[in-house]
Amino acid sequence: MPIGEFELIERYFSGRGAARADLRLGVGDDAALVSPPPGHELVLALDTVAAGTHFPPDAPARSVGHRALAVNLSDLAAMGADPAWALLGLSLPSGDEAWVAEFAAGLDALARRHGVALAGGDTTRGPLSATVMLAGTVPAGGALLRRGARPGEDVWVSGTPGDAGAGLALLQGRLAAHAEARDQLLRRFLLPEPRVELGLRLRGVASACIDVSDGLLGDLGKLCAASGVGASLDARRLPLSPELAEASGFEAAAALALTAGDDCELLFTAPAARRSEIEALQAGVSCRRIGVIVADGGVTVAGTALPRDAGHGFDHFGR
Amino acid sequence: MPIGEFELIERYFSGRGAARADLRLGVGDDAALVSPPPGHELVLALDTVAAGTHFPPDAPARSVGHRALAVNLSDLAAMGADPAWALLGLSLPSGDEAWVAEFAAGLDALARRHGVALAGGDTTRGPLSATVMLAGTVPAGGALLRRGARPGEDVWVSGTPGDAGAGLALLQGRLAAHAEARDQLLRRFLLPEPRVELGLRLRGVASACIDVSDGLLGDLGKLCAASGVGASLDARRLPLSPELAEASGFEAAAALALTAGDDCELLFTAPAARRSEIEALQAGVSCRRIGVIVADGGVTVAGTALPRDAGHGFDHFGR
Repeated sequence: MPIGEFELIERYFSGRGAARADLRLGVGDDAALVSPPPGHELVLALDTVAAGTHFPPDAPARSVGHRALAVNLSDLAAMGADPAWALLGLSLPSGDEAWVAEFAAGLDALARRHGVALAGGDTTRGPLSATVMLAGTVPAGGALLRRGARPGEDVWVSGTPGDAGAGLALLQGRLAAHAEARDQLLRRFLLPEPRVELGLRLRGVASACIDVSDGLLGDLGKLCAASGVGASLDARRLPLSPELAEASGFEAAAALALTAGDDCELLFTAPAARRSEIEALQAGVSCRRIGVIVADGGVTVAGTALPRDAGHGFDHFGR
Repeated sequence: MPIGEFELIERYFSGRGAARADLRLGVGDDAALVSPPPGHELVLALDTVAAGTHFPPDAPARSVGHRALAVNLSDLAAMGADPAWALLGLSLPSGDEAWVAEFAAGLDALARRHGVALAGGDTTRGPLSATVMLAGTVPAGGALLRRGARPGEDVWVSGTPGDAGAGLALLQGRLAAHAEARDQLLRRFLLPEPRVELGLRLRGVASACIDVSDGLLGDLGKLCAASGVGASLDARRLPLSPELAEASGFEAAAALALTAGDDCELLFTAPAARRSEIEALQAGVSCRRIGVIVADGGVTVAGTALPRDAGHGFDHFGR
């Protein structure tokens, strides 16, 4: 017999994530009750991962739980926020207890690593999808925004974008790779590492920031539009991972790095005077300068042939 | 050609709901940025309404937008919270612009009436469902909780529970009614009125509170479990609407009032000394005493034959 809704919530979602003194009331009332720190603003993000759209229907449950939180952690990282409390809306085709246990374990492990308490939510019967709302805090006036980039500033990206897109292509049989590269690229899609610590350290350093979720070019286009500027990138400076370059070759790797979604990396801008500071940030991931902000609108890329639809980002309805 | 995701968000979800000075940054960055008032706690709720589970797939889009917010407003009302900022996760099978326009209008109208700003969210392609996260505020220590009911206290319910369940039965052809009663009962299902003002006025008056979303008996059972008490109800005191009584007759009407979900009413307890105060609350809806809290666990009902599965509430996986 499938497990009931209340029992499922009690067994797998009550008390999950980090223990926080500022969580006054978690799972088990009509709503959660939390105490935000004085002098701070709240940063609120909500993102859905749905089977067939954001992950293959047979993706490991642990990965789905991890990614449902990771995409929201990445949004908060891009704002320079300290993540605190999450709510989960889980839609399940059936009360498959083993699946839920793995899903909860994936979400729980990532939440603990980032000090996030699972404060509440809702489960319903329906097609497989998970919506997470993540709330965090930032000192008042200190959030990183998309607007703020100025002509002449450097464009930076963290980590090795494109890996997650290659991992998805591997999962879907559209790409092949040797075992070691395959494991690494799959891991980057299934268990991406949001750059929360980097976002915190970029407060007061970066002039604008966005997370790479819809493709680097598309997301850079949004940052530029919000800032009223353009950008000029050099594809030869893209920080391609050895695994990605090996699996794809340079042109295809650069195309994935520029257009694939699902990387939880940060894309940001800063004045040239901050270069050595940024290179020394020690936030668990290195950052690479890949271009420069220009006055004219639009994003241009030198050093590679652009794929046909580059720069439009990932649009769930438009294609 | 279907409308694209970014265009859809910009056209229908940017700047919706009430204008609030404490919304620093709304739709259009990686996350929303809000300023909570000093000395307050935050109340966070998240609820999903899904086609086929919470509403018929052909329900009017305006009703779906209304109900997606209403169920969360009802959760905040049950905590005595002042609603402030909402995030929307909308899953759509296609970019049907006319449907989205009506959905957004339904959500917008209810949000404005309750001073809620739509601060952000996410749209994805997928089976029709809407998840809303609603954040509100309450003076620190002032929230209404499920625990707190004491033996000897009165059990109260607002409005006329059972109407929404009858409205759903009418929609599904399981019930018939004359035109006027039909319109009224359908409206109670399609456009339920969450009791936000009542929740605010019950702060410092009610000893425990829950919203009736899974059926009065089931929700009273949860309140009693949280408080470590039982309750004794008198079905003859249930505030049945004339429309419900006419459509169903007393026994069936009482069964709907006791077990149907979807009513956005509040169920609460208070000492007998507060009776005249509660009757004079002037919160746009009247409240009726329907029973008393007792020391023993369990909820009993006099004056009607209980339906077979009474007291278990609505469980999406268990039945």
